[in-house]
Amino acid sequence: MKTYYECIPCLLQSIIRLFKNGLVSKKKQEIIIKKALRDLSKNAFNYSPPNIAQKMYKIVKNKTGNKDPYKDIKYKYNKLCLGFYKELKNKVDRNINPFYEALKLSVIGNIIDFGTNHSFNLIETISTYEDIDFAIDDSGLLFNDIKNANSILFLGDNTGEIVFDKIFLETINHSNVYYAVRGMPILNDSTKEDANFVGINKLVKVIDTGTDFPGIDFKQSSSEFKKIYTDADLIISKGQGNYESLSEVKNKRIYFLLMAKCNIVASQLGVKKGDIVVVSNNKIYWD
Amino acid sequence: MKTYYECIPCLLQSIIRLFKNGLVSKKKQEIIIKKALRDLSKNAFNYSPPNIAQKMYKIVKNKTGNKDPYKDIKYKYNKLCLGFYKELKNKVDRNINPFYEALKLSVIGNIIDFGTNHSFNLIETISTYEDIDFAIDDSGLLFNDIKNANSILFLGDNTGEIVFDKIFLETINHSNVYYAVRGMPILNDSTKEDANFVGINKLVKVIDTGTDFPGIDFKQSSSEFKKIYTDADLIISKGQGNYESLSEVKNKRIYFLLMAKCNIVASQLGVKKGDIVVVSNNKIYWD
Repeated sequence: MKTYYECIPCLLQSIIRLFKNGLVSKKKQEIIIKKALRDLSKNAFNYSPPNIAQKMYKIVKNKTGNKDPYKDIKYKYNKLCLGFYKELKNKVDRNINPFYEALKLSVIGNIIDFGTNHSFNLIETISTYEDIDFAIDDSGLLFNDIKNANSILFLGDNTGEIVFDKIFLETINHSNVYYAVRGMPILNDSTKEDANFVGINKLVKVIDTGTDFPGIDFKQSSSEFKKIYTDADLIISKGQGNYESLSEVKNKRIYFLLMAKCNIVASQLGVKKGDIVVVSNNKIYWD
Repeated sequence: MKTYYECIPCLLQSIIRLFKNGLVSKKKQEIIIKKALRDLSKNAFNYSPPNIAQKMYKIVKNKTGNKDPYKDIKYKYNKLCLGFYKELKNKVDRNINPFYEALKLSVIGNIIDFGTNHSFNLIETISTYEDIDFAIDDSGLLFNDIKNANSILFLGDNTGEIVFDKIFLETINHSNVYYAVRGMPILNDSTKEDANFVGINKLVKVIDTGTDFPGIDFKQSSSEFKKIYTDADLIISKGQGNYESLSEVKNKRIYFLLMAKCNIVASQLGVKKGDIVVVSNNKIYWD
């Protein structure tokens, strides 16, 4: 996906959110925001939004020396979501359609996000998740595609959210799934440390992309990741960062599972901001 | 008021809003946004938000050659609000407290704004205005100060909104009021043309600030404006632009009448975004 004008304020907000969360010292803040504005003035429209987010985050890393400002927040959300695990797992298992229930939970988990300009109330959303419907529902197609796939590559997104992905992976109980996380810390995205912490490594093969790109960028990905992507029959892609990277891929069977967190993505998908979708890439209308 | 980090995305949004409203040709948009980002990277924190808005708007004017991009929108809102005039004027006149009713309408009219990052539904808000209360209500103090003032300077804000100011001015029926508008077009702010169009010039003396500053900047103001400001016993200041310019003035009796359209101003005033206030400058806690 290209970068739209509306993405610029949103990308700046994601830096300001770091400031507000007290993750950048006061004296570094002005230096960082000015450098971000300068870089945006040169490069904003040559790259996709996750590309720019990566560049912005690099400024923060370089200027603060902190390679993982969201470390504590990531841990907090993993712990918080693990606290819901048992209750939700039981709910899914007792449901007449565990697949659908686990899928919905996994997508609702995508509400946890510090990279986009959206505020969220995780606990309230989880407590009312049964009343939330998919705005685009290709779950039937996905169910069949999972059944028929020899190998699946699941592209994870945020910490906390991965606990819900775990329930989904347990539910589909497929014998050949790769779960991909980011190769290095970026925003509140999951790395191997997070996947291991919530126990995904006990269910499926956890790999990483080889880069801190908050989405998928084949130019930066490791050859291991690229091989697994190429060989997989089916890609299950969580979240906006992965969607923004792969939304124009046509030669691969991809399902995008996400909450639309901005008007640009919502409008591309023909849904409202805040809606959850499970959508096959065959159904997306391109720019 | 100084410019906060959160003001930057908001100020960029006000340019993007011009794009979305089709007021800037596609080929100029990228040039404008890049220049705005470059200027912000140099100057953002040396100026107040209205200062920066003026600079951003100057970029638009210079690059497009259009000195008044909001011309049609301003006319539309003046016409629309004039359409409500009779009904609302009757409502105010029949009320047991016309002053309070006219004051509330005038502040609610401040909802019309294309300079801040807030969306609004004018017609819905007007139809339910009787249910809306002031979050800070210094209306009693204001009433007395108006009664005792020999001369009043009313600082107008947006087009459309000025129709509600007209009802207020008719209601207070004070013999010595100056109504100040911007000296040149900026955003959707009112100029003399608008004040005359809605008939304010038939009620009080309409003056202008002598500049296109979307607030008050004494460095740029005409000497006529400065003299009237200095001589006035009482300043009634509408909207955020005027508030952001004068919020730190202590040697003058000022009442700020506004809808808080962003979290920064809301939090300075101790209210919620979207709240309406009529607040004396003695009651404001400074940074």
